[in-house]
Amino acid sequence: MSLTNATPLEVAKAARVGSRRLAVLSTEERNAALTAIHQALTDGKDEVLAANRQDLDDANRAAAGGTLSQSLVKRLDLGKPGKYEDMLQGILDVRDLEDPINKVTARTLLDDNLTLSRITCPIGVLLIIFEARPEVIANISALAIKSGNAAILKGGRESSHSFAAIASLISKALSSTAVPPDCLQLVQTHDVIADLLKQDSYIDLCIPRGGNKLVRYVKDSTSIPVLGHADGICTTYLRGDYPADKATKIIVDAKVSYPAGCNALEQLLVDEAALTTTLPSIVEALLQKGVSLRCDEDSLSALQSNKALDPHSAALLQPASASDFDTEFLDLVLAIKTVPSLEVAVEHINAHSSHHTDAILTLDATVAKAFLAAVDSSSVYWNTSTRMADGQRYGFGTEVGISTNKIHSRGPVGLEGLTIYKWTIVGDAQVSAEYGAGGRAWKHQKLPVGEDEFVARSEEEREVLRKFRAGKSS
Amino acid sequence: MSLTNATPLEVAKAARVGSRRLAVLSTEERNAALTAIHQALTDGKDEVLAANRQDLDDANRAAAGGTLSQSLVKRLDLGKPGKYEDMLQGILDVRDLEDPINKVTARTLLDDNLTLSRITCPIGVLLIIFEARPEVIANISALAIKSGNAAILKGGRESSHSFAAIASLISKALSSTAVPPDCLQLVQTHDVIADLLKQDSYIDLCIPRGGNKLVRYVKDSTSIPVLGHADGICTTYLRGDYPADKATKIIVDAKVSYPAGCNALEQLLVDEAALTTTLPSIVEALLQKGVSLRCDEDSLSALQSNKALDPHSAALLQPASASDFDTEFLDLVLAIKTVPSLEVAVEHINAHSSHHTDAILTLDATVAKAFLAAVDSSSVYWNTSTRMADGQRYGFGTEVGISTNKIHSRGPVGLEGLTIYKWTIVGDAQVSAEYGAGGRAWKHQKLPVGEDEFVARSEEEREVLRKFRAGKSS
Repeated sequence: MSLTNATPLEVAKAARVGSRRLAVLSTEERNAALTAIHQALTDGKDEVLAANRQDLDDANRAAAGGTLSQSLVKRLDLGKPGKYEDMLQGILDVRDLEDPINKVTARTLLDDNLTLSRITCPIGVLLIIFEARPEVIANISALAIKSGNAAILKGGRESSHSFAAIASLISKALSSTAVPPDCLQLVQTHDVIADLLKQDSYIDLCIPRGGNKLVRYVKDSTSIPVLGHADGICTTYLRGDYPADKATKIIVDAKVSYPAGCNALEQLLVDEAALTTTLPSIVEALLQKGVSLRCDEDSLSALQSNKALDPHSAALLQPASASDFDTEFLDLVLAIKTVPSLEVAVEHINAHSSHHTDAILTLDATVAKAFLAAVDSSSVYWNTSTRMADGQRYGFGTEVGISTNKIHSRGPVGLEGLTIYKWTIVGDAQVSAEYGAGGRAWKHQKLPVGEDEFVARSEEEREVLRKFRAGKSS
Repeated sequence: MSLTNATPLEVAKAARVGSRRLAVLSTEERNAALTAIHQALTDGKDEVLAANRQDLDDANRAAAGGTLSQSLVKRLDLGKPGKYEDMLQGILDVRDLEDPINKVTARTLLDDNLTLSRITCPIGVLLIIFEARPEVIANISALAIKSGNAAILKGGRESSHSFAAIASLISKALSSTAVPPDCLQLVQTHDVIADLLKQDSYIDLCIPRGGNKLVRYVKDSTSIPVLGHADGICTTYLRGDYPADKATKIIVDAKVSYPAGCNALEQLLVDEAALTTTLPSIVEALLQKGVSLRCDEDSLSALQSNKALDPHSAALLQPASASDFDTEFLDLVLAIKTVPSLEVAVEHINAHSSHHTDAILTLDATVAKAFLAAVDSSSVYWNTSTRMADGQRYGFGTEVGISTNKIHSRGPVGLEGLTIYKWTIVGDAQVSAEYGAGGRAWKHQKLPVGEDEFVARSEEEREVLRKFRAGKSS
């Protein structure tokens, strides 16, 4: 890793060259690099925290001057109890995940001694653009090395001292490993993002980690594929048959447990049948948690005329405007809309949600299955909270982010989302013109899959790859 | 299907709405639509061929006037023996492939009664832009319906009569099926591509099928993801140990069997050891087939001073310029370069091939495995012809095209490349805040995969989906 002042073109080219050599390292070599990084960051904790305190001092001054938010200051702080240790543990967790590359995911016997295999491999060069959170540099470095990808990391200005300290330790650690140092490039130069986004000859995938504004800017400014999501407008559809206690538990969790999360609930669709039965107690619970409720006309009048609802609570309800159903509040605000049918609920979600995570609450399996089939979102749930949408909760160990893309990787993106595959054929001089009309017939027989038998692993093969990596001849 | 004069925005919106309803059709309903299209095109053969003759007459006039190439005229002709029947058979072949959607490809028990599933689903709305070849409209319609995707098809001007005839038949056929007619939109209005490429709110994936110029224009003009390849610069690396007869067979097939194909060989890298042993007889065979050879300095002088090579042949060899190693000839031209090592061959390929298909010819398994691991291309072969890169040969039944993208789908793209997945969770009121430090532990237990048990398939469930498709309430 180098904290570099090179031009974006030089950075991208160097990462590309490094990526070719990283891609042929063995599982053990990549894992050893993660062990080395973990050790270096363990030994260098005091150094990193001292640098982090410099960032914090600057940020606190900026916050006092009103140019930086307190929540951003909080996200900068690596000294919070357990946070540094979590970062260190995250590196080991990634190391101990199954190797996502060199796996045969399909194999076909095309003809005798002619075998087609689909083998997972790294994507190549990733560009990660992120805002505060200095620990991301360690997470992303670990994910990139584990999946055999080079990564260019562009961090926020606010964490520059922390980044420099972490980068220097990682750089030193990698120098004793098989991972080429150019595989991780840390860029802190100002105003360099626009030029990095032009390097589509060298960069294969861009992952912006930050707010809506950053993601939209990146998507609008590059022809490099972008993985991520701009908005998280999540919806839950409450049917009349679902018990009030379970509905309350789920809706309160989805709205209140972390309102700033992209998987937090922003809209509640309510079946007409629930307006006077289960909705009042759910609304009471939300109001007690300090949630502002913006209700459409039907739900507002039903609630206000309902004697089960405390008059003080009823007075807190606000009328919704149309724009409330296209807004990511990221706050203790919830929009409520009455829907006459499953069909209207699904059409509303497909038109107004951000295709991130949407849920239905019902005891009716027929209705639920239709909802799961018809809602076009990354994650669609039946009787649970939208907050479940998370790589760690899905069992991926860690996540790169959450994608609402319609291609490649959708929903929480783990290591698998950082891989692609290549097709190999191993033959014995069979050629295309031998097959087809009047010639040989294809066998097209599916074979079992598993480890890649063509991954170099004998000592002799490793020697060839070592020479290859070192630029020597074979 | 409608042959439409609507605006690109209207076309894209209508396709999006149609796609939602198509996505929830059953396998049988989608297959029945393909049967109906097959029947309509069988019955309407005379009508289509009459329209095709109008296109051919226009094209022949244009060719005589020098404004259209003869090869394009040939590709227009649906009346060539067997071509119409192949088109018809293609529809049935696609129908009979395994349904690519509603498959569970991963399933995890998160906790008791809390199950995460990854289920394949359609991408949504495809935009297919193609040049001549009127049969593509039938192929793509079949692939789109089979995979549950809506498709907007923009054909070339040269085949407008054929398209209109085919579109009208398909439209009539679909009207008696469950497939909403808006799911296939045929656009022939002039100069509408630029506006279609702006509809990124409604179109999910763009697939240009045509020459380098079309593909580059599309890639540079849209923020919609583009699947395809601009160039097909394929390379074969000949090692000194590989027998001359097998090498000749493979290299002649790769270069000569279809020089205009994107998988045709454009560059031969030759190990120094092969210059005086196997290369001369390979060169003789290529020259006999009329291939022009552009040789680097070392191969040129080795061949010209080699007594095994006929002096007349030696006189036909031409010196290569640097640009010959970055050129897709699409013709009987081959560039030859001498390389001192595996490492140099791999670096040349990674820098100069178009990452489409590259091959090594050798008996040495160690060297071959290192090549397969280190070459960063969609398809990488050992001892066979680059012409093998083809969806039909890979056993996909048919292909949408060949992708050199680094995300989503790489190499020949079959039905699987037209699908993505969604994540579902089915729970019983578990919520996120119950898990983690001090709370419940995740089970994260892998479960077997297979058919989607949540796909609506009881008669009652089908009735709900039928109402949903018809816009009625449940």
